[in-house]
Amino acid sequence: MRHFLKINDFTSGDVEAVFEKAKDYKKNRGQAGTARPLEGQTWAMIFSKSSTRTRVSFQTGIYELGGLPMFLSAREIQLGRGEPIKDTARVLGRMVSGAVIRTYAQSEIEEFASYSKIPTINALTDDEHPCQILTDIFTFNEKRGSIRGKKVAFIGDAACNVARSFVHAAELLDFQLVCAAPEKYQTDVTNSHTQTTSNPREAAKDADLLYTDVWISMGKESESEDRIQEFQGYQLNHELKALANSDALVLHCLPAYRDKEISERLLEDCADDIFDQAENRLHIQKAIMDHLATSK
Amino acid sequence: MRHFLKINDFTSGDVEAVFEKAKDYKKNRGQAGTARPLEGQTWAMIFSKSSTRTRVSFQTGIYELGGLPMFLSAREIQLGRGEPIKDTARVLGRMVSGAVIRTYAQSEIEEFASYSKIPTINALTDDEHPCQILTDIFTFNEKRGSIRGKKVAFIGDAACNVARSFVHAAELLDFQLVCAAPEKYQTDVTNSHTQTTSNPREAAKDADLLYTDVWISMGKESESEDRIQEFQGYQLNHELKALANSDALVLHCLPAYRDKEISERLLEDCADDIFDQAENRLHIQKAIMDHLATSK
Amino acid sequence: MRHFLKINDFTSGDVEAVFEKAKDYKKNRGQAGTARPLEGQTWAMIFSKSSTRTRVSFQTGIYELGGLPMFLSAREIQLGRGEPIKDTARVLGRMVSGAVIRTYAQSEIEEFASYSKIPTINALTDDEHPCQILTDIFTFNEKRGSIRGKKVAFIGDAACNVARSFVHAAELLDFQLVCAAPEKYQTDVTNSHTQTTSNPREAAKDADLLYTDVWISMGKESESEDRIQEFQGYQLNHELKALANSDALVLHCLPAYRDKEISERLLEDCADDIFDQAENRLHIQKAIMDHLATSK
Repeated sequence: MRHFLKINDFTSGDVEAVFEKAKDYKKNRGQAGTARPLEGQTWAMIFSKSSTRTRVSFQTGIYELGGLPMFLSAREIQLGRGEPIKDTARVLGRMVSGAVIRTYAQSEIEEFASYSKIPTINALTDDEHPCQILTDIFTFNEKRGSIRGKKVAFIGDAACNVARSFVHAAELLDFQLVCAAPEKYQTDVTNSHTQTTSNPREAAKDADLLYTDVWISMGKESESEDRIQEFQGYQLNHELKALANSDALVLHCLPAYRDKEISERLLEDCADDIFDQAENRLHIQKAIMDHLATSK
Repeated sequence: MRHFLKINDFTSGDVEAVFEKAKDYKKNRGQAGTARPLEGQTWAMIFSKSSTRTRVSFQTGIYELGGLPMFLSAREIQLGRGEPIKDTARVLGRMVSGAVIRTYAQSEIEEFASYSKIPTINALTDDEHPCQILTDIFTFNEKRGSIRGKKVAFIGDAACNVARSFVHAAELLDFQLVCAAPEKYQTDVTNSHTQTTSNPREAAKDADLLYTDVWISMGKESESEDRIQEFQGYQLNHELKALANSDALVLHCLPAYRDKEISERLLEDCADDIFDQAENRLHIQKAIMDHLATSK
Repeated sequence: MRHFLKINDFTSGDVEAVFEKAKDYKKNRGQAGTARPLEGQTWAMIFSKSSTRTRVSFQTGIYELGGLPMFLSAREIQLGRGEPIKDTARVLGRMVSGAVIRTYAQSEIEEFASYSKIPTINALTDDEHPCQILTDIFTFNEKRGSIRGKKVAFIGDAACNVARSFVHAAELLDFQLVCAAPEKYQTDVTNSHTQTTSNPREAAKDADLLYTDVWISMGKESESEDRIQEFQGYQLNHELKALANSDALVLHCLPAYRDKEISERLLEDCADDIFDQAENRLHIQKAIMDHLATSK
């Protein structure tokens, strides 16, 4: 029984296998005879936070793999309220074949996975967003070749799950990550592949991939004004891009707030790449589910 | 790529093709070997307003055409809030094969359709309710023969999407429409096939189809008392029906408020027709989706 | 057309047939070639109360029988508000092939079933919870042989739907039921197979099955403190179990409140049986739907 609760649940070999499968799923989408490793299975999607991309990509993906996606919102299932997670996990583990969970505490999905005995996937927690980061790297590989040895600049709010998963991925997949953020929003995990700076120009310099995420994520709306003030100068725009490698790729995990963390102009100039990246969520997640469902 | 965002997105030839398909889908429902033009496809249903008939008929219809309906409520997807519609449209357009949208502003579905590049269907906006009106006319044709040249009386609140779609349909399909409403609730669109009056008896006289809709539609509950006052005399009942042609058909798009816009007695006397009409939503919408999905 | 709105809608012959089918569905789950009696059908699930086990087991079960589960929450469909149940029933009856309803008043599902003309199943009302009780008895039979002539002790809040369905089942399937509850929470239905007592030790003595349900069910949270006081001494624990037959089975329909109606220790010691019981909801409900769908 394997889970994907954090980047480090996968080896680089797992990532390679997932990328190969994702390429196949992308190439063969909609064609008769493509693999249906979830045939006849029901997969639960337990979401404590609202979502568009993650939800739609998993629902579509489960269905395209032959299964039935069963979406259960926070209000309906009350994960961790009403009854202990270990009871919900033991019940669902008897009824469904896999679980995709978006929630707050990492400990909740860890506890669920240890009791449910079904493949469980992190679809965003406070700690990590591993499906997003695999998608981002897959998109880079697809458009620019292997990310190994390349320089990735993460600019903006680095004290978030997306940045944290990027840090772990940098080590696992051997690329160089520079996080440029105000000190108070700097990443709290690090390793030999990660540098931190408060200078976005330093991060952007010679970068192969420029990346940002929203400054005001879900639940932080009350800090909106303060954050906009504190992130001045960290906007991803053509000025920063001019410092990067000439063929640097610009990605954004969406939703994008125009002229906040990214300029409207840069977003729209890079829209083809960014919406390819969004679409790749579907292919990568199908590959992850396939990989877990067919692993011993 | 074709959409069905308003009656006038269809030619009379389109309507004819849709009616033919609907007849087939109705006749062959539940039989092995019926067409499954959405096989393997996911269709998004984005609903900003609650719904019973529209939702159930589309979900069932998508499934019966071989696809997976993915229902997304307003709270979950926040169409037009959080991120611009054009971004949501571009993401969904990569992941799903079609969209059915119930929302407020017509401009929202127009914008969605222009960015998503997938067949998009209006399942009710402030402006139009085209799937309902095609269903109504299909039901008339089925029970009384072609509506061409016939007289349709729309009695009650004519300042609504249903009446507006009827006005456009009158011209497209060449029937005569008379809207009887208090001046302030009279239709705001018109054409050579439409007459308006404040006299419900004049509208009902010699009519072939008597039609009404709720006086207090969703979101207008606070105007309830005023409206009930203002619509006095516009109730569809046996007295008005006695003025119509002897085989006049009575339809209602439901939900019905008894002894408000329609008398309990007339509603129950015409229940077989009215619930046939409700069922026809299913067949017509399957035909519309088939028509769009198989158009170039 | 048959429904399952209460235990007494089934004869003992029906129960026997359902149990046989459930055994087959359990044995053959996930294997190619198992029966799909709902192939191509949409079944509505109308839930006025939140739910985990019932919802997940029905959604999974409908899908495994070949159908599409369509979950409709209270907010979305407003059963009995907005329009009369008889109208909603007549519309849904034209569009879907079966209905599973969780609501408050028994009269609502009775009215729905009489107008919809599709197989309708009680998934919990204020009066009964028949799918749960069939599951409980199936689980007993599976683990200890036929329940006929055995002694069942229901300990705790006996003024609830679960206890009421047990009373009817005792007569139908010929076992002895003893309900131990404070006078004010004693069952309000009875028959020759049921005894009541306020002494939990008397109920537990020589029992073959020990059963309890939550003291504070959904909607009763405001009575929480009073109820905990009033149910002192009615906790199912090892002390009571010591009075029962040495191989007595302990079941709980979940969710469980530890050290309230059941001790943490007894719950975890009996967890294998209790989560088997939870899983059996799936198999029994598949058998019930099969039985109704294939009955004349």
